[in-house]
Amino acid sequence: MDIVEFSPETEQLTWTFGGAAPVRRVRPGSLLRLWTEDAFSGRLRSTEDLASASLNMPFVNPQTGPFYVEGAEPGDTLALHFVELTPARTWGASATIPFFGGLTSTDKTATLQDPLPERTWIYEVDTEKQTVGFQAQGSDFEVALPINTMLGTVGVAPAAFEVRSSLVPDYFGGNMDTPEMKAGTTCYLRVNVEGALFSVGDGHYRQGEGESCGTAVEGAMNVVMLVDLIKTPGPAWPRLETDDYLAVVGSARPLEDAWRAGQVDMVGWLSELYGLDKLDAYQLLSQVSEVPLANVVDANYSVVTKVPKRLLPNAEVYGGIHAQLRGIKS
Amino acid sequence: MDIVEFSPETEQLTWTFGGAAPVRRVRPGSLLRLWTEDAFSGRLRSTEDLASASLNMPFVNPQTGPFYVEGAEPGDTLALHFVELTPARTWGASATIPFFGGLTSTDKTATLQDPLPERTWIYEVDTEKQTVGFQAQGSDFEVALPINTMLGTVGVAPAAFEVRSSLVPDYFGGNMDTPEMKAGTTCYLRVNVEGALFSVGDGHYRQGEGESCGTAVEGAMNVVMLVDLIKTPGPAWPRLETDDYLAVVGSARPLEDAWRAGQVDMVGWLSELYGLDKLDAYQLLSQVSEVPLANVVDANYSVVTKVPKRLLPNAEVYGGIHAQLRGIKS
Amino acid sequence: MDIVEFSPETEQLTWTFGGAAPVRRVRPGSLLRLWTEDAFSGRLRSTEDLASASLNMPFVNPQTGPFYVEGAEPGDTLALHFVELTPARTWGASATIPFFGGLTSTDKTATLQDPLPERTWIYEVDTEKQTVGFQAQGSDFEVALPINTMLGTVGVAPAAFEVRSSLVPDYFGGNMDTPEMKAGTTCYLRVNVEGALFSVGDGHYRQGEGESCGTAVEGAMNVVMLVDLIKTPGPAWPRLETDDYLAVVGSARPLEDAWRAGQVDMVGWLSELYGLDKLDAYQLLSQVSEVPLANVVDANYSVVTKVPKRLLPNAEVYGGIHAQLRGIKS
Amino acid sequence: MDIVEFSPETEQLTWTFGGAAPVRRVRPGSLLRLWTEDAFSGRLRSTEDLASASLNMPFVNPQTGPFYVEGAEPGDTLALHFVELTPARTWGASATIPFFGGLTSTDKTATLQDPLPERTWIYEVDTEKQTVGFQAQGSDFEVALPINTMLGTVGVAPAAFEVRSSLVPDYFGGNMDTPEMKAGTTCYLRVNVEGALFSVGDGHYRQGEGESCGTAVEGAMNVVMLVDLIKTPGPAWPRLETDDYLAVVGSARPLEDAWRAGQVDMVGWLSELYGLDKLDAYQLLSQVSEVPLANVVDANYSVVTKVPKRLLPNAEVYGGIHAQLRGIKS
Repeated sequence: MDIVEFSPETEQLTWTFGGAAPVRRVRPGSLLRLWTEDAFSGRLRSTEDLASASLNMPFVNPQTGPFYVEGAEPGDTLALHFVELTPARTWGASATIPFFGGLTSTDKTATLQDPLPERTWIYEVDTEKQTVGFQAQGSDFEVALPINTMLGTVGVAPAAFEVRSSLVPDYFGGNMDTPEMKAGTTCYLRVNVEGALFSVGDGHYRQGEGESCGTAVEGAMNVVMLVDLIKTPGPAWPRLETDDYLAVVGSARPLEDAWRAGQVDMVGWLSELYGLDKLDAYQLLSQVSEVPLANVVDANYSVVTKVPKRLLPNAEVYGGIHAQLRGIKS
Repeated sequence: MDIVEFSPETEQLTWTFGGAAPVRRVRPGSLLRLWTEDAFSGRLRSTEDLASASLNMPFVNPQTGPFYVEGAEPGDTLALHFVELTPARTWGASATIPFFGGLTSTDKTATLQDPLPERTWIYEVDTEKQTVGFQAQGSDFEVALPINTMLGTVGVAPAAFEVRSSLVPDYFGGNMDTPEMKAGTTCYLRVNVEGALFSVGDGHYRQGEGESCGTAVEGAMNVVMLVDLIKTPGPAWPRLETDDYLAVVGSARPLEDAWRAGQVDMVGWLSELYGLDKLDAYQLLSQVSEVPLANVVDANYSVVTKVPKRLLPNAEVYGGIHAQLRGIKS
Repeated sequence: MDIVEFSPETEQLTWTFGGAAPVRRVRPGSLLRLWTEDAFSGRLRSTEDLASASLNMPFVNPQTGPFYVEGAEPGDTLALHFVELTPARTWGASATIPFFGGLTSTDKTATLQDPLPERTWIYEVDTEKQTVGFQAQGSDFEVALPINTMLGTVGVAPAAFEVRSSLVPDYFGGNMDTPEMKAGTTCYLRVNVEGALFSVGDGHYRQGEGESCGTAVEGAMNVVMLVDLIKTPGPAWPRLETDDYLAVVGSARPLEDAWRAGQVDMVGWLSELYGLDKLDAYQLLSQVSEVPLANVVDANYSVVTKVPKRLLPNAEVYGGIHAQLRGIKS
Repeated sequence: MDIVEFSPETEQLTWTFGGAAPVRRVRPGSLLRLWTEDAFSGRLRSTEDLASASLNMPFVNPQTGPFYVEGAEPGDTLALHFVELTPARTWGASATIPFFGGLTSTDKTATLQDPLPERTWIYEVDTEKQTVGFQAQGSDFEVALPINTMLGTVGVAPAAFEVRSSLVPDYFGGNMDTPEMKAGTTCYLRVNVEGALFSVGDGHYRQGEGESCGTAVEGAMNVVMLVDLIKTPGPAWPRLETDDYLAVVGSARPLEDAWRAGQVDMVGWLSELYGLDKLDAYQLLSQVSEVPLANVVDANYSVVTKVPKRLLPNAEVYGGIHAQLRGIKS
């Protein structure tokens, strides 16, 4: 197995899906050991570092990549399996940012109100207890929360000659911000350009569903992942597989459209896997789906449609590649 | 303890929140043993019974109630605790209905396309295995799914002289269609009119999050519940408490507004419970919330914001009434 | 011709569509001379009267009515023609109201931000120049704006046993807040209950499209109108006819659904009037419609789809009733 | 005055905002005589040419440009004034395209319904009468409609390293599809990259507000326009000026966000022009704005907020450049 190690220098960070030259070429079947910078580009290091003074737009949400996958052609299915996601710093950061987030007006949901105050929270990592520490700033409340590492951003280059900011989630993946993107998950993405040009970033030590304030417990991450390529047609929207679930992530605005897009793709997926017609698959989905929000704060909102494997007969999903990838030890 | 038994005759069913005379007066602390008709008013009994021919609008989603709660005054908090929800028939039904549901155009998300075909599915209840049986109609696929009983509709009379169809979820509860409304849950609702005038209905033997096709495994239900009254200000949106979670259900369109409403209420609730200021509560919620969809098909869409109790210090919630009600045996 | 004069006493004002006893019975063909109170119930009379201190919820947007139309049965078409709308006071008022309006967060588009400040503006009516005077409060800017009287609220009782606040626009009309509801307009509404039970209110001396801040130049109004009844099926959404336009008003959230609903109804209307199939009517509408916003602030948003008569051949609309009503002198 | 003539060869057409090399460098003050291909890339020439067979995605909505404006730096204001828009063919075309348009489900507003049928309409141009001819296909109805030429697409390269499809409207302009983009209009855009890199395309011989079916009367266009540069900060959203109106075009989803964005920008603009504080400008806008929809079909929806100059005192807008440009004869 090829093993690729890559820890970008600051000047190697990228800020888009598409439009950047690959940092490495990798063969299907490779194992990658990567380091990702946090979404704040490491600039929020104390509660004194407020977003509007410390961040340097548009240099946020840096990506590690893109990686050129040998043999990947438009229409193929790229499989990215996450083996380990480990905090690469002893602290994570979260912040309110003026006119950004779910419970404030924004540049698009625009109002005439003043922004919420800015505040930055630093969460100390307790490696032994596997927790991050929340400390209130307006009172002396504190609580240790379990670490649940995930990647906010996993994506490939878009189609139609587009280049999108790494802040955007869409059909090409990107900034979906779903806690389902964790160790043990395989992510299937349709390849849009030669080489797929995928990248990863935006590590979260922990995130609630919806990512209400717009930022999770953001932290640099050590990422171990496997890359594979399937020469069958890729999905319309990013699909996820874990030992327990099949899932589709739709991203759009308004939020119901993100849901609709993922649901329609899941109807198609269930139809294929179980030989159901469209109406039967719709009915079955109606009774078995679990639908946690991913984000309601990004350029598109993201919703996850999950189907629990335990409720359904075994099915051959993408040739059983998830189980194979799960069996590979890093 | 007062015990009230009530199983409505057909002509006693009600179709609205507000606007109907109470069927019983109950004292706080009472235990109710009720029977609820299914959302189809029992008219879909075989796969031959298609919705448009069999249903008689607006006589759908019948309510058992309303109940007048002695001493309940506008502004109070009504606590409804569900002790047992048991299927009252040996089968449940689900159906596609023309221009109703999440993956079709509707009267409001209107398009010029033809409706999806109508189809009715009958799910046989296996009491021993505690399953309902899904049978595909376009193929011979079948699968038994675990029974997870819940009530789609729990609500009080609205404010501002309004009378709303039992199909509507809003601040007064109503047709929220969340799987969280199950045995073991306490639902807190603000009282809007004297006597509160709550009713329940729309039993589901099982429902996926989002209720994609617009109907769950609909079935008549035997409901055992406790009614209590708290003379402190009721919540802006329906709140739920289980042994494991605090939750708020927001209902609105578009879907992000349902989410925003519930989230803002939860920020307020966390602030009260833990003495947090608004920004700290917002931050904490951002890292701990679980947000499953309830419905994306009704007159308003509903989203649940849940906070796991295990992540936070113990807190006194409504005077500890949930634990008390849990302790009462039916 | 029957002539009905009615100027409600304060205790005769009504606050809902549906749910109130009729104030008068009128025969089709009657002419009504009415007085309507302003949406603030006349409580904002100087710039010192701020909304949150002066308004008494839910006693806002009072209606004059309802009127029982003899012979009106569910399914019929009610035709309401406005002959004259004349300011009944020498001043109008407008105001910002906390968490109400289009450029602020609200109870549903909820955020954690502070509300905008409250302010009340008084517009003096200049009867000779037919203007209302805007006076800035943060500077000495002032400008006289032409009076364009209209009614914000025209509606019938809803179906399905519902009673809706007079703040709501929907398929039954209601608080649509469109400047198209002016003298010379005929409004067609589907009758939902015996007698139709229509009411009018919410006079505006002037309003911009969208009613951005949530309130127009609100003023008591003298209304002269004609009432007629057509025993053919009423429209799904309120339709308007003027000498120059056919129009449909859709009301829903999100705003695109308000648009879709009205557009689909207009496609059907054009199909009927000109014998077009659905696709041809869709195409024609795509090239001829004018689509001004009505409101983006109420419980539902409202959008008007207009088709200019000058672009299309003459057509017989509701038996030519608009021209007849236009010909009647008050 | 520099005069630049440019009629792109097929291989010179561009398909994005940003990401393409400039076809010409132009100096501020230049007059451009351009030819633009239609949005179908000229491939729909008869009613037999249906979209899915004839169009070659993503090669639609071709742009003429981009043009590099000498001296344009990020933050500047680019002024584009349209002098003449003249049909460059004797026919225009419109079409329904599967799962594209306002009254059908789409890839994002996804449903399980079948698409609407495809149909293509050809509109013959009558140069003398200045009309285009609509011919129904399901009946023998026909009508001649006045030509109202406009450009659907006018935009600059986006910021943040992005490249966007020419189908997208956003803060950088692009595919706004507003009938206000006609001869006599000056469009102000913020410059995001050196040289601005603007392009134009998507000529419409006529379009209804909203562009319901997703396509206007699409036609190749001869464009005469003036380019100028203002070294003051450019607007957040595209602004338009005509002899009669000031306008802002907001683009977003859902539609209310497109409206909010444009309205907030207009509040700021009125504040600047008339020395009003935010609340006074909000109030004034509420009573004077005209708000026609532009499109409800593109990747973002677009809404125009217009303020009639006749209602307000004269104001100095961008140094009076509109009047200057209007005075220049081509």
